[in-house]
Amino acid sequence: MSLYPSLEDMQVDKILQSQNAAVANAAAAQQQQLGYPQGPPPAYSANPYSQLSALLPGGGGVGSYDGDNSKKAAGFAYPDLGDYMGLELSQEMIAANMPEYLHRNAGQLEASPMTSVNNVNMVAPISGDSVGLRRGQVTNGIRELVLCKGSDKKVGLRAQAINKGVFVCLVVKNSPAAMAGLRFGDQILQVNGTLVAGFSVDDVHKLLKKSDKNNISLVVRDRPFERAITLHKDSAGSVGFQFNDGEITAIVKDSSAARNGLLIDHQILEVNGQNVIAMKDKEISKIISEGGQLITLTIVPSMIYKVMMKKLSTSFIKGKMDHSIPDF
Amino acid sequence: MSLYPSLEDMQVDKILQSQNAAVANAAAAQQQQLGYPQGPPPAYSANPYSQLSALLPGGGGVGSYDGDNSKKAAGFAYPDLGDYMGLELSQEMIAANMPEYLHRNAGQLEASPMTSVNNVNMVAPISGDSVGLRRGQVTNGIRELVLCKGSDKKVGLRAQAINKGVFVCLVVKNSPAAMAGLRFGDQILQVNGTLVAGFSVDDVHKLLKKSDKNNISLVVRDRPFERAITLHKDSAGSVGFQFNDGEITAIVKDSSAARNGLLIDHQILEVNGQNVIAMKDKEISKIISEGGQLITLTIVPSMIYKVMMKKLSTSFIKGKMDHSIPDF
Repeated sequence: MSLYPSLEDMQVDKILQSQNAAVANAAAAQQQQLGYPQGPPPAYSANPYSQLSALLPGGGGVGSYDGDNSKKAAGFAYPDLGDYMGLELSQEMIAANMPEYLHRNAGQLEASPMTSVNNVNMVAPISGDSVGLRRGQVTNGIRELVLCKGSDKKVGLRAQAINKGVFVCLVVKNSPAAMAGLRFGDQILQVNGTLVAGFSVDDVHKLLKKSDKNNISLVVRDRPFERAITLHKDSAGSVGFQFNDGEITAIVKDSSAARNGLLIDHQILEVNGQNVIAMKDKEISKIISEGGQLITLTIVPSMIYKVMMKKLSTSFIKGKMDHSIPDF
Repeated sequence: MSLYPSLEDMQVDKILQSQNAAVANAAAAQQQQLGYPQGPPPAYSANPYSQLSALLPGGGGVGSYDGDNSKKAAGFAYPDLGDYMGLELSQEMIAANMPEYLHRNAGQLEASPMTSVNNVNMVAPISGDSVGLRRGQVTNGIRELVLCKGSDKKVGLRAQAINKGVFVCLVVKNSPAAMAGLRFGDQILQVNGTLVAGFSVDDVHKLLKKSDKNNISLVVRDRPFERAITLHKDSAGSVGFQFNDGEITAIVKDSSAARNGLLIDHQILEVNGQNVIAMKDKEISKIISEGGQLITLTIVPSMIYKVMMKKLSTSFIKGKMDHSIPDF
């Protein structure tokens, strides 16, 4: 069974799959007519969509909206790929924005591309090359960071103890912690080889304080309470939700947010992997509007966000929080 | 930077990496002595660990406990791989339990194996082949299921509306929903092409009720509120936590649960991918103790679990919930 990062990817993949199947069927039929029962399929060099139109009765591309391509093709035919779902998927748009994809699928009867990102072997014909998706994805994996202390003798993080675990709730901008790629929500498992499960925040801060200036080893689990969700802008540039103080308050009907199951009462932590905590809503909107066609949001249920931010006032973190765009 | 599914994988990978580096260094030194400055490294055919012992002073394998293998190797030498962390990693154990791994690393100076499962390109020398990890993993991906109705005209699911999303909170055993692989916590995005964002539970149940007997299409997002965590049993068979009514209440110091950052106030939903909701604690313990060396738990914060189970009494779901072991 195929897995997809977004509903839009699933729907486009189905169109492509059924088009490929149609091309294959047409090619097979042609070969049979010509008496080549075992010959190779003809090489389509440039434009599978227009060739498809030429091969099929009716002229337009046909998309089957079904998991197995055999049953309901007739009931779910789309007049044209570009008309579908408000997504601009004309040949020109694809050539301009996703040339790799065009190349991979130029007439070849192959499966849709998988995400080359960490994203769980998903089929992602339109999200697969998104840098934001890769930057924003939540892996829950374990990694090790080696830090040193800055000139102020600090590593630049604040922690919070939750449910016997220790979580990063502030990464100070331009600090060693920020430069090492630590993120809000990372769970600290070890400091210099010492397991910190069950430690209080003070214990952890003391461990960091008494450690050497260099070679401070942190082992962290990637943001256990969080998850990422990828949305696609419509032709008006909207992904379809409202928010207030970074908290999602409403979902627009029939928007990408609705299609992909974005939820209210969730806090937006990152946009395309960039931390937006304690930013003004206006700034967050600007980052979303300038963030390209695909927007990956990293979110956490509001009730958990409140526990994570307990003891940290917005005024305290404002101006301190690292809002840099992560390397990838 | 490497990512790992568990802390044990990280630690074993480091030992293996530094052993490989030591073998490479020794081989390079040997070649230089023999006057082969550019020759290929000698082919080690069977047992890198014993050859390492022969090559290195001191006799035992050496493991550097550091991200870059250059700095602290001397400070973190382990006497023997098998003595480390209570994990039984003798050559015989690996041969008996992880023959593929032995083969892949038989003297070859290559990177540790990645998980071949959906698990986010992680390096997993000891967890990589775990079926439980694959069954239990939470992908958050989108998939489509095609259901029919059973002889009772039901598909066999109960939903719950949370934050404008619709979530599966009961999959009835032996029902069409169970057989299609629907799981507790899956978010329903579409029913027969209709987006259900913002729908009430009654709306969704009505949609299902009025749909045809066959070809009911559900598009779901894999368990958004949940996450999976993989633990390794110690020599006494313990993974290191206590629970009550399926809720984690305490973490044992220096256990695998502590190493990997398992949290209290979380509900256990699955063990190695098998649903254990509303089971007696004794039954859950039995599944864990019979579940092999690696245990993957699927968990959710208790406060979210309570919201998901609102309106469903334990007595109602007891005996109804699908507890079958998922196919993979």
